[in-house]
Amino acid sequence: MDAKQHVIDKAILAKEAVRKLAIIDTNTKNKALYAMADALIENMDVILEANSKDMQNGKEKGLTKALLDRLLLDEKRINSMAEGLREIAFLDDPIGEVVKMWKRPNNLKIGQVRVPLGVIGIIYEARPNVTVDAAGLCIKAGNAVILRGGSEAINSNTAVAKIISDAAEKAGLPKGSINLIEITDREAANVMMKANGYIDVLIPRGGAGLINAVVKNATVPVIETGVGNCHIYVDESADMDNAIDIIINAKTQRPAVCNAMETLLVHKNIAEEFLPKLGEKLDSMGVEIRGCSATQNIIKSAKQATEEDWSTEYLDLILAIKVVDTIDEALEHIYKYGTKHSEAILTNNYENSQRFLNEVDAAAVYINASTRFTDGSEFGFGAEIGISTQKLHARGPMGLKELTTTKYIIYGEGQTR
Amino acid sequence: MDAKQHVIDKAILAKEAVRKLAIIDTNTKNKALYAMADALIENMDVILEANSKDMQNGKEKGLTKALLDRLLLDEKRINSMAEGLREIAFLDDPIGEVVKMWKRPNNLKIGQVRVPLGVIGIIYEARPNVTVDAAGLCIKAGNAVILRGGSEAINSNTAVAKIISDAAEKAGLPKGSINLIEITDREAANVMMKANGYIDVLIPRGGAGLINAVVKNATVPVIETGVGNCHIYVDESADMDNAIDIIINAKTQRPAVCNAMETLLVHKNIAEEFLPKLGEKLDSMGVEIRGCSATQNIIKSAKQATEEDWSTEYLDLILAIKVVDTIDEALEHIYKYGTKHSEAILTNNYENSQRFLNEVDAAAVYINASTRFTDGSEFGFGAEIGISTQKLHARGPMGLKELTTTKYIIYGEGQTR
Repeated sequence: MDAKQHVIDKAILAKEAVRKLAIIDTNTKNKALYAMADALIENMDVILEANSKDMQNGKEKGLTKALLDRLLLDEKRINSMAEGLREIAFLDDPIGEVVKMWKRPNNLKIGQVRVPLGVIGIIYEARPNVTVDAAGLCIKAGNAVILRGGSEAINSNTAVAKIISDAAEKAGLPKGSINLIEITDREAANVMMKANGYIDVLIPRGGAGLINAVVKNATVPVIETGVGNCHIYVDESADMDNAIDIIINAKTQRPAVCNAMETLLVHKNIAEEFLPKLGEKLDSMGVEIRGCSATQNIIKSAKQATEEDWSTEYLDLILAIKVVDTIDEALEHIYKYGTKHSEAILTNNYENSQRFLNEVDAAAVYINASTRFTDGSEFGFGAEIGISTQKLHARGPMGLKELTTTKYIIYGEGQTR
Repeated sequence: MDAKQHVIDKAILAKEAVRKLAIIDTNTKNKALYAMADALIENMDVILEANSKDMQNGKEKGLTKALLDRLLLDEKRINSMAEGLREIAFLDDPIGEVVKMWKRPNNLKIGQVRVPLGVIGIIYEARPNVTVDAAGLCIKAGNAVILRGGSEAINSNTAVAKIISDAAEKAGLPKGSINLIEITDREAANVMMKANGYIDVLIPRGGAGLINAVVKNATVPVIETGVGNCHIYVDESADMDNAIDIIINAKTQRPAVCNAMETLLVHKNIAEEFLPKLGEKLDSMGVEIRGCSATQNIIKSAKQATEEDWSTEYLDLILAIKVVDTIDEALEHIYKYGTKHSEAILTNNYENSQRFLNEVDAAAVYINASTRFTDGSEFGFGAEIGISTQKLHARGPMGLKELTTTKYIIYGEGQTR
């Protein structure tokens, strides 16, 4: 099968589907989402069988335990995929919203209306649930989707995509609304990245390697997601008990995700009292500490942090700690090493809280809360397609609205310039 | 001078400037814009002298009359550049606007706040006025700008950039807010296109060749501007006199710009009566007609339109005309040949007007008005940096707001997940 032809064939189907999807009513889209959810449950055996093939192949290929766990589907996970689709049906349809409308002096009425982006390409790795989540969100926002998952999950993805695509079509969505690229070598992904005129937007979901490859190679517009080297700065005036709760939450509640904290900055005037208490708690939670010299003087068990530690996204139970002389030093450190994802200050000082909010350039900037809240559900968006770490189009958690664009509609009565 | 080092040096200055620019008060930005305007007037002789060098070089290189006209600066044009800066000072500052703010069930207060994009790169061609317009708009929205103009205008651009940059700095803007790349070979532009981590957004302004080169080669996010193969569809029920006014306006008022009409579609039931009247008027305005066979049968002077005509952006006094059987055929033609810029229907039929608005996928869709209104000033944005023809981030005329992004600010009181 020729990768280029395969991708272009799917993209042509998707482009045709988009013309109808863009103007379809919300009820039909919701009906399709429910039908997709039902079909997943009804065909659970088919999915489990396909997944067991992937698991078998994965074991033979020697995939890590973590990767195998991501790949695994079981009854509970399939139920949860179906539930996710029903939740998307429940969300407000963003399409058709008149963002604003105004009248010009010449009586032209100009309105800005929310419309679908068009054909969205998703390039992702081992998790088969992305196939369902991404498809559900894209079609609710009136987009067609072209999914290209990892080779490890090809049997699961093929089964799942066929089931939801058939169910969607039967429920009234145009053919070609949901498409899976069945070629998982690099070539197919490369074709997607250069498919200007066919694919409107590419969203990579996965590790830093995948995301960087897409950003570097794509000529199609990309929404960059992911990398989070997040900091918490404990100001001199912070409430210490509260700070410990927040830090433990941001580091340990789910260390492998992008909004987990990686480096802690502590004001020198509070370090002597605060760090021993914190160190004890971190120890008890199994967190390895890598500290600057001042930190090591206070927490004896801390290893020496190297320059590399300040820029590492551990995604693990490891925390880098640095004692800083001033809030300026903290801001400078975040500017130098941060990835503009999520940053927090813990303080009771009004001026410092406002300086931190204003001066830190990141998708989400917190006062006195855990960085773990940077998430579509936590923000109240209902579901998310990812967390944008770029500045163009979308920044931070991306919900349905971020899968849309706008167009201007102009009501005239014969006006000329 | 090493092109790469030159660009990176400027970008480092710009990045530093952005940190201060992002939090500077509106009064200082406005004061700087006025100071820049005054400096242009005070140094008019310096600019005119530099421009005369460019004009001399241009004549020796055999630039076309049109290009030489774009390159030319005179007292009137310099005054108008200065006036443009004063108008930007008059516009509302978009930075700091709280787009929305809401409270979550856990009492987190989440706000979405408008902030600058950061460092904006502008790659443009022969018009030295872009140097001033782009710099003014970028800094008003709190961005630093890196300007890379065409080689033809290098003397003018160097003089103008130095004058406004010095004036801005003296008025309180950080050094490095306005930067001109002094190397005009392709290498410097290529470095800008790949300067991820230094340049946040690239906006190419110029012809299709330049824009395509940037879209194809850039790894930095790009906002695509420009190409407009715009259509007007005259429906069966259109008011004919009104239609003639609009068509003449859209084709002849300024044929060389992207929102001028290039192809006219006419419903067959009105063609026999309408086209002779229109043909006469177009003739009198010196517009060459290239028509389908049905058009040629009615307007005898019309040349035969070829397949190529339907996709050509003439930017000239040439109009392609096609007679269509139905509104569906018109919609299909626009889908196939349009560039998603500006499209208009002239009609008195309610259903057709709504179908056209809903089904045409373009930055601006008009009922009963000229496509020439797709413009920042005409939309009431005050000034524009270009017209986006892409779907990501900005679509249609881009004013100050489109030169910004947002960040989420979160007010907590100790919340954890």
